[in-house]
Amino acid sequence: MKKSLGANTLIFPTPVWCVGSYDKDGKPNVMTIAWGGICCSRPPCLTISLRKATYTYGNIMERGAYTVSVPSIEFADEADYFGIVSGRSQDKFQRSGLTPVRSDLVDAPYVEEFPMILECKLLHHFEIGLHTQFIGEIMDVKVDRDLLLDDGNPDILKVSPLVYATKAQAYHQVGDLVGKAFQIGKRFS
Amino acid sequence: MKKSLGANTLIFPTPVWCVGSYDKDGKPNVMTIAWGGICCSRPPCLTISLRKATYTYGNIMERGAYTVSVPSIEFADEADYFGIVSGRSQDKFQRSGLTPVRSDLVDAPYVEEFPMILECKLLHHFEIGLHTQFIGEIMDVKVDRDLLLDDGNPDILKVSPLVYATKAQAYHQVGDLVGKAFQIGKRFS
Repeated sequence: MKKSLGANTLIFPTPVWCVGSYDKDGKPNVMTIAWGGICCSRPPCLTISLRKATYTYGNIMERGAYTVSVPSIEFADEADYFGIVSGRSQDKFQRSGLTPVRSDLVDAPYVEEFPMILECKLLHHFEIGLHTQFIGEIMDVKVDRDLLLDDGNPDILKVSPLVYATKAQAYHQVGDLVGKAFQIGKRFS
Repeated sequence: MKKSLGANTLIFPTPVWCVGSYDKDGKPNVMTIAWGGICCSRPPCLTISLRKATYTYGNIMERGAYTVSVPSIEFADEADYFGIVSGRSQDKFQRSGLTPVRSDLVDAPYVEEFPMILECKLLHHFEIGLHTQFIGEIMDVKVDRDLLLDDGNPDILKVSPLVYATKAQAYHQVGDLVGKAFQIGKRFS
């Protein structure tokens, strides 16, 4: 038996991503979001949704660029902090002790200590309602070398990204392998 | 040291969601996607991205609605199958043995056996490139009663959704709690 929980934004899983941007004075900022996802394979694009009230919103509109730094579980506290306060009131890089690195490809900073980085050039923005959706073309993905498998792809268990459980407001880690895609379902076809 | 992996759609985590739709003859179909996310809190909206070539694309354009059924790990094989073949060539509900249920709220079916269901009314669609982005307003979220916590919210470990590791093409389960959001980061503020 299913229970109706009403019209709300409850779905699993959602990501924990830290969006890097520069303000008009060139000060780096970073904020944590759970509303986003890949939205196109060619060109490779990542969408993130932000409220207009956020500091990052204005930064992205002005600079036309953002990064997404994926925190590993050991940086869960820092990632949470990046979602609690506004860059208008605190220098979040300074307070967390993490390091902003200027992207060579887009006009935005990323978090050096985080294991996986995406550098995005703003292509579109769409007003949906409370949130505006930004569509960014992914110019490059950078991953810590020691987290790569022999085939050159990153090991999700070594990157150890966070999963966000909406409503419960809880961060979880990624767990065991369940199966290989495009294989385990073949028996039905 | 970070290694550049080029311009591609590699990020962690991405979801495993099964999109339900009716074709023009009223036949239910379901396909699995990893490109999507919540994109607005008010109205509550979920975005999914599809290639024009998919059967589901035409269905959603015609019916103006879709559902997202979140598979639990015990249905990983079925979810994988839903992403392998097209509804043009196979009746995926029939072959998997799973049950299509007609939504009372939108013109689309969902998967009865899956623990979490979202029913969405199409609001917008945006052409990004290879993929088209659909923006759907979430009309209701339904969750199996026995997976709810005492506070009425679903337990992510009981829902046991899948996480997709791009490139490695692997499904993982959600693991242990790391910490509570809006709490563990307070020490920096």
